[in-house]
Amino acid sequence: MAERTYAIIGAGALGGYYGGRLAHAGVETHFLLRSDYEHVRRHGMTVESTDGGFQLPRVSACPRMQDMPPCDVVLLTAKTTANAHLIPQLPAVVKPDGVVVVLQNGLGVEDAVAAVVGAERVAGGLCFLCSNRVAPGHIRHSDYGLITLGDYAPGGELRGITERIRAIGGDLESAGIPIALREDLYSARWHKLVWNVPFNGLAVLLNTETDQIMHDPAARRLAEDLMWEVVAGAKAVGKTIAPEFVEKMMRDTENMKPYSPSMYLDYRAGNPMEIETMYANPLRAAREAGVELPRIESIYRQLAFLDKQR
Amino acid sequence: MAERTYAIIGAGALGGYYGGRLAHAGVETHFLLRSDYEHVRRHGMTVESTDGGFQLPRVSACPRMQDMPPCDVVLLTAKTTANAHLIPQLPAVVKPDGVVVVLQNGLGVEDAVAAVVGAERVAGGLCFLCSNRVAPGHIRHSDYGLITLGDYAPGGELRGITERIRAIGGDLESAGIPIALREDLYSARWHKLVWNVPFNGLAVLLNTETDQIMHDPAARRLAEDLMWEVVAGAKAVGKTIAPEFVEKMMRDTENMKPYSPSMYLDYRAGNPMEIETMYANPLRAAREAGVELPRIESIYRQLAFLDKQR
Repeated sequence: MAERTYAIIGAGALGGYYGGRLAHAGVETHFLLRSDYEHVRRHGMTVESTDGGFQLPRVSACPRMQDMPPCDVVLLTAKTTANAHLIPQLPAVVKPDGVVVVLQNGLGVEDAVAAVVGAERVAGGLCFLCSNRVAPGHIRHSDYGLITLGDYAPGGELRGITERIRAIGGDLESAGIPIALREDLYSARWHKLVWNVPFNGLAVLLNTETDQIMHDPAARRLAEDLMWEVVAGAKAVGKTIAPEFVEKMMRDTENMKPYSPSMYLDYRAGNPMEIETMYANPLRAAREAGVELPRIESIYRQLAFLDKQR
Repeated sequence: MAERTYAIIGAGALGGYYGGRLAHAGVETHFLLRSDYEHVRRHGMTVESTDGGFQLPRVSACPRMQDMPPCDVVLLTAKTTANAHLIPQLPAVVKPDGVVVVLQNGLGVEDAVAAVVGAERVAGGLCFLCSNRVAPGHIRHSDYGLITLGDYAPGGELRGITERIRAIGGDLESAGIPIALREDLYSARWHKLVWNVPFNGLAVLLNTETDQIMHDPAARRLAEDLMWEVVAGAKAVGKTIAPEFVEKMMRDTENMKPYSPSMYLDYRAGNPMEIETMYANPLRAAREAGVELPRIESIYRQLAFLDKQR
């Protein structure tokens, strides 16, 4: 069993699933909960999963970060739209030699966390997971689950695959979570944007799912053009994305079942959209490197309008 | 009274108003009508207008172009979305020495008409008009009315202010329609796109009116960026739009009452949108001149998707 203790900041579809697996495996895990706090405190959590479900009758649930014990590993799993509220409170929950692992969408969150807890206490990861919170304290995991983990260094520098990231990966793998380790987290984040930038935004703006976008020549072409702009942005900041990767993303989406990207779910539920980390931050990074991404910028400004209309 | 006879191809909000004014002034005017044909044939037309309304108890209404007498002047006033159907039939309704005046939105319709009736029988105009068809044969004109007329020559060349365009302008002015004559119709069309491209598309995509676009920093910035892309497109084809014109369009829109652009009305009514002439043709013209307009292209592809979803 892991000697490391874990804090889950945001126990929704993602944090509830991964944190639930850790707790189920016997790892000391503390959950920050907001709306589900009372329910989970009394009744625990339920995780349905295609990989085998389970109950957690007793869960260490906390309504505020200041009530949580400082932990070795803090998994930041909330939506990035809560970051302005959450990040300033992180120092209370991470041990002096602990680490905050940013498991969120988009770009630039590690930098924001580093500014508060110090760059040496930051790592990050990308989650490839289909999971929903179907009721208070009730998570339904329907597919996938891989976390791609990498350590963080400012400015997109490589820190290598560190001992601590191996150890955290080991804890998660022992809990039944598939893990891949990456030396270059920043490059991995840009790669993930290749899919996220076109399909999250277009699903919202066209009020549709991935299959309709792929079946319409105009929308499909725009999706691919947006992918190439992500490639151009990555290149501007020194990260290479192979053309074959774009082709694979298009092919994979073509072959996928109709899918609602997370931003589309947020939009339809009337929740804030993760446009700052998914659009504004990549645009800013590319612009600072001297490259404009006009199609992405256009999509971003449209989304910013819709986000304010809520 | 004019010795010229007129055909109005598409007697809706625009053609019904202008054609109605001509007929009211005693000009021989024949109207092509589709859904309103039976009503107008029996009951004539009603024009309400801030400049003075009138009734036309008897109207020369025709259900098909082949039933119309060949005329000296053919005003093409239908939506451009009907052009694929209408333009091939134009030769039947224009006299050998007559002229088709394209009073439609966007770019490139004169070229399409010229390909069918010959370049020497084409002119064009831009209408600045607030008018609605409120019931069959019933037009409500609420503001403005200026037609900017210009003669046509292929490739955006100047044909000057010709005798015939002066004569047509005279007929329209005698009927109470304000007229401006322009030597450079193609440049005038690009100028008009400076407003039409941002506000038509964004109203549809953001499901809103002009005032909301102007009040939101992100949407307003995108609108202005789209204007600058129109300026770049115009420059690519050899037409200069002064920066002050963009600033004026922004200022004018800021000071306007909340306004629904025509494409937004079409979209909400479930009608086809004029995206080919307003977006695809300017994009093509710029591209042939070696210039990409990525923001406009992004808007265009989204609109093309929505147009197909009808």
